Amino acid sequence: MTRRAICLLSGGLDSTTCLAIARSEGYECYCLSFDYGQRHKAELESAARVARSLGAKEHRIVEFNLRLFGGSALTDSVEVPKDRAEEEISNGIPITYVPARNTIFLSFALAYAEVTGAENIFIGVNAIDYSGYPDCRPEFIRAFEDLAILATKAGVESGAKISIRAPLMRMAKADIVRKAAELGVDMALTFSCYDPDSQSRPCGRCDACILRRKGFQEAAIADPLLVAY
Amino acid sequence: MTRRAICLLSGGLDSTTCLAIARSEGYECYCLSFDYGQRHKAELESAARVARSLGAKEHRIVEFNLRLFGGSALTDSVEVPKDRAEEEISNGIPITYVPARNTIFLSFALAYAEVTGAENIFIGVNAIDYSGYPDCRPEFIRAFEDLAILATKAGVESGAKISIRAPLMRMAKADIVRKAAELGVDMALTFSCYDPDSQSRPCGRCDACILRRKGFQEAAIADPLLVAY
Repeated sequence: MTRRAICLLSGGLDSTTCLAIARSEGYECYCLSFDYGQRHKAELESAARVARSLGAKEHRIVEFNLRLFGGSALTDSVEVPKDRAEEEISNGIPITYVPARNTIFLSFALAYAEVTGAENIFIGVNAIDYSGYPDCRPEFIRAFEDLAILATKAGVESGAKISIRAPLMRMAKADIVRKAAELGVDMALTFSCYDPDSQSRPCGRCDACILRRKGFQEAAIADPLLVAY
Repeated sequence: MTRRAICLLSGGLDSTTCLAIARSEGYECYCLSFDYGQRHKAELESAARVARSLGAKEHRIVEFNLRLFGGSALTDSVEVPKDRAEEEISNGIPITYVPARNTIFLSFALAYAEVTGAENIFIGVNAIDYSGYPDCRPEFIRAFEDLAILATKAGVESGAKISIRAPLMRMAKADIVRKAAELGVDMALTFSCYDPDSQSRPCGRCDACILRRKGFQEAAIADPLLVAY
């Protein structure tokens, strides 16, 4: 029987590599992206290209409006921080943190898993670069796994577990770049920037751009996305 | 300092009574409803009327589309079951179960709690009438509470707990009707039916209508909603 996985996919380097890992393990992948009032749509276009390129079985986009609550530089009209030092990026909870975002994302993934019969949910969270985000930590992932058993029909009826797989959790950005290269991912299709210009070109100065650059540099691989500009 | 609570509000009898309980405990209430592709909007209109009537501080409606996944009689175009016996309603997981619905609802409530600084989330789940729904059980509520500590900025920074309050968990429907009457709730404003007609009149035959009728009968109180027709 085909094993199925739900793959959360933002179209960034991390979630793309995570999808490639799921594919390399033989999973039939049901990708899930979110249009949640983030400031730009470039990442959704990337997600669609990535899903096609990696042979996803399905790709669904759930729309909802997190701007309704506010509370983040990614959904409000406040400045995205620029030119921060790496130590600054890795410590504390940044203004780009979106309240309860991964909890919401995993909840929708759980609904999708129940409907498709998937036994795994892949999420590209990473505790190295995003140590300041509460919902990127291994404790959070384990707690969601515990919740999933109690929250689903399959869990209640047969004790079936839905595993939350976070294969990038302990990887540095350079390891992620190497893994993506090893799996043949077309990294030109991925998009990381929090604050692209009107032509969807990365700013090069936000936390996501800084971490991405550092990852490619340390892996000694050229970023094909930047070659395009 | 004013104590704040997020109150999940469908506009049905249970969530309305739950909001009235939160108000009676002195909370400033931030109500949250969902437009998730359910088959009718009558419950959203009820929710708005109830929130006003009970003096809610705010009422927000989050829109998203659960029809995207399917898997429930409340979001798909399959028949809502009618004229079922009470024993049948209380056992097994019914076709009106919406995959991961309460997990998704509580996740949004958690985001709202982070942004407003609320320390409580009230949810009108009930394990007596809805024993077949995995996400209406006390174990599920406790697991979500454990998750909330790990998922939020306040939890990580200061160990602050967001309590998930489910005051109706062990109440029979008649107890809920009595409680609502005691708190002076205008029950004519509430709406319970899964399958109303085009004039938003309750069908009287779905599980929700059957349970509501039984509750009012056992409490020996007339249902003011039915008097209107």
